[in-house]
Amino acid sequence: MPCGEIIIVGDEILAGEVLDTNSFELARELADAGFNITQITAVGDNKAAIQEVLATALKRADLIVLTGGLGPTWDDKTVKAVADALGLPLEINEQTYAHLKEHLERQGLQFLPGHEKMALLPKGSQPIGIAFHACGFKLLYQNKILYFLPGVPKQMRQILQEQVLPDLKGRFPHRSILFKKTLRVFGISESEVQAKIETVLSRFPEVKASSLPHFPEVHLVLRTEKEAVLQQIVKEVKAILGNNIFGEDTETMAEVVGKLLLQKGYKLATAESLTGGLISHLITEVAGSSAYFERGVVTYSNEAKIEILGVPAEIIATYGAVSEPTARYMAEGIRRLAQSDIAVAVTGYAGPTGGPEAPVGTVFIALATQRRTKVSSYHFEGNREEVKIITAMTALDKIRRYLLS
Amino acid sequence: MPCGEIIIVGDEILAGEVLDTNSFELARELADAGFNITQITAVGDNKAAIQEVLATALKRADLIVLTGGLGPTWDDKTVKAVADALGLPLEINEQTYAHLKEHLERQGLQFLPGHEKMALLPKGSQPIGIAFHACGFKLLYQNKILYFLPGVPKQMRQILQEQVLPDLKGRFPHRSILFKKTLRVFGISESEVQAKIETVLSRFPEVKASSLPHFPEVHLVLRTEKEAVLQQIVKEVKAILGNNIFGEDTETMAEVVGKLLLQKGYKLATAESLTGGLISHLITEVAGSSAYFERGVVTYSNEAKIEILGVPAEIIATYGAVSEPTARYMAEGIRRLAQSDIAVAVTGYAGPTGGPEAPVGTVFIALATQRRTKVSSYHFEGNREEVKIITAMTALDKIRRYLLS
Repeated sequence: MPCGEIIIVGDEILAGEVLDTNSFELARELADAGFNITQITAVGDNKAAIQEVLATALKRADLIVLTGGLGPTWDDKTVKAVADALGLPLEINEQTYAHLKEHLERQGLQFLPGHEKMALLPKGSQPIGIAFHACGFKLLYQNKILYFLPGVPKQMRQILQEQVLPDLKGRFPHRSILFKKTLRVFGISESEVQAKIETVLSRFPEVKASSLPHFPEVHLVLRTEKEAVLQQIVKEVKAILGNNIFGEDTETMAEVVGKLLLQKGYKLATAESLTGGLISHLITEVAGSSAYFERGVVTYSNEAKIEILGVPAEIIATYGAVSEPTARYMAEGIRRLAQSDIAVAVTGYAGPTGGPEAPVGTVFIALATQRRTKVSSYHFEGNREEVKIITAMTALDKIRRYLLS
Repeated sequence: MPCGEIIIVGDEILAGEVLDTNSFELARELADAGFNITQITAVGDNKAAIQEVLATALKRADLIVLTGGLGPTWDDKTVKAVADALGLPLEINEQTYAHLKEHLERQGLQFLPGHEKMALLPKGSQPIGIAFHACGFKLLYQNKILYFLPGVPKQMRQILQEQVLPDLKGRFPHRSILFKKTLRVFGISESEVQAKIETVLSRFPEVKASSLPHFPEVHLVLRTEKEAVLQQIVKEVKAILGNNIFGEDTETMAEVVGKLLLQKGYKLATAESLTGGLISHLITEVAGSSAYFERGVVTYSNEAKIEILGVPAEIIATYGAVSEPTARYMAEGIRRLAQSDIAVAVTGYAGPTGGPEAPVGTVFIALATQRRTKVSSYHFEGNREEVKIITAMTALDKIRRYLLS
């Protein structure tokens, strides 16, 4: 498998001012295209440091992708560092020069000395990205291919997808591309997933499996060279994990719930207390959700629970706002109001403090359907944000499991 | 300034399966504490690679922080790579050994050979993180300080904050700590911010200013060695940007709105259509928000707008659900229902498609108070998620500006 390295240039990365998502995206896309990334290095806008990192990477890698330090002012250090690291002179690239001149003239702008500098590239470079008015170039050096891309994520992505990946695939036709399937799991822990599928995995030594926690989900990624083998192991893992797998690849829980609601022609309504609108926010992240999401209420105060949902005041007085009966009345109340097929309601303590009747993390989730209302109680661990997220996801998951049953 | 390097170990980072947030957090915290991070390197779970990266970093840095490859099974490669890179033998660390034994006994669990392996560290190491039941150690080597932390972000963060940073500050008392202030701006663009404060910045050449886009906010970060200078420039920038600055440092828009509501003793209610609950979700992210957030409704369907909020059916029929009059009736309806001092309502098209009366991105935001209701219309650019976020933030910002006026 061809080995590659990624180099990220930018003081803002080393100062922790900007989260570097470029290396993540590059690594994922290159890995999926069959390249083996062995190192990612971030350095500052410092010519000596860029030069050293590049020279070291050249000793190991077949391909290098570098981003950043190519700003339109070329006040950045990457180009000079590249020229010095490779021992190449800088010269005007005619293609870039002509493009810049034409582009400026079309806009009625003057060609300035600064623009000429923009066309100055290490000898032998081919400009990339000029179609998107972005600076970038590629270079063949000692049988290795080097790409230099802008650090702006949107420009980087465009050049990567439209120029770098097609170019790389042509240069390395004999990559061993791995077929990949991500199974998204909710409701059981990472170690439970591992324990359950251990035996299956041991029968497929050619499959690389990794389970990745994506709170509060677990993503099981399976990779192998043969598509038929992947299909077989996916089938066996699905048989074991069953409904604990809620989706595949990029599917979200809310998308899956939405698809099931659409299939059945059901309408959904929500009544939220501790999640504060997060459940309906997740549902309405999905395009087309207005076809099945009727309404939601965020009844944060007792008065709202009583007035909007018709929870009897004496129920709250007797059992508390965070209780099984309150959750039940909330779900039945919103289902009646919305005249929806399904309604879900949540009440609980997200923290940092609990309440008179229960400690922080106590949550009741009620699912009301035409036939019956079922309330489940939970005790979730975590901070306020985490308790909100896991409660919202558990509520969506209850809807999903009900629709599948 | 002491120079540091960060090393991240993990196949999942190089395969683009997990976004590395550890290096971002480490870089930010170390920079804020007065250390100069010169390189961040990610390598796989590969002993030779870890060894090489560590040996190279040791030639340049005064301090090294490495995360990952220290899993509880110690099947990971970091410890052996460290021992080999530094030429140190592995030996049982008595402190870790005793802690593990006691911890297991207290839980009624057996001490197994695998546990003994967990106490095996390079000679001279001091365990860190055992108080949190996490693996980690530090090592003084050739007058350099090396920290090895678990890759689990939560454990990494805890050890960093409670052990690494205090330890480092004690070891390097003569750091030139930069005083830093982040001003959070909403409502004007990054280039507007730059244009407005250009003149001020030019009068403070000793201040390093960076404006960072954090969609949909702009964060203006000011850094300088003298606290008095920082205070002066912050004062001048605030005078220019005024209420466009909504918060400082880590304050969120919802926190600021919450503080202002508390100060005035006002209650808030929300009625959301396109944002689908995101506004109330953001408000209820803040601990203690139940003191001022009364209730919210997500009236996604026309029926919900009519039934819950009392929007007249003929208003929707005549002007459409996405219109100035509908937004007005929604805000007034929820304010009346909740008997709140302030109410905000939003209606619009988040996309991917628009509607009969307006294109995608069209949004109406209404703010109802005891004195009057004001509706503003917007046309936001972006995908569905972005339109939801910028609408929710704009709604919160309208409440903030009203409370400040």
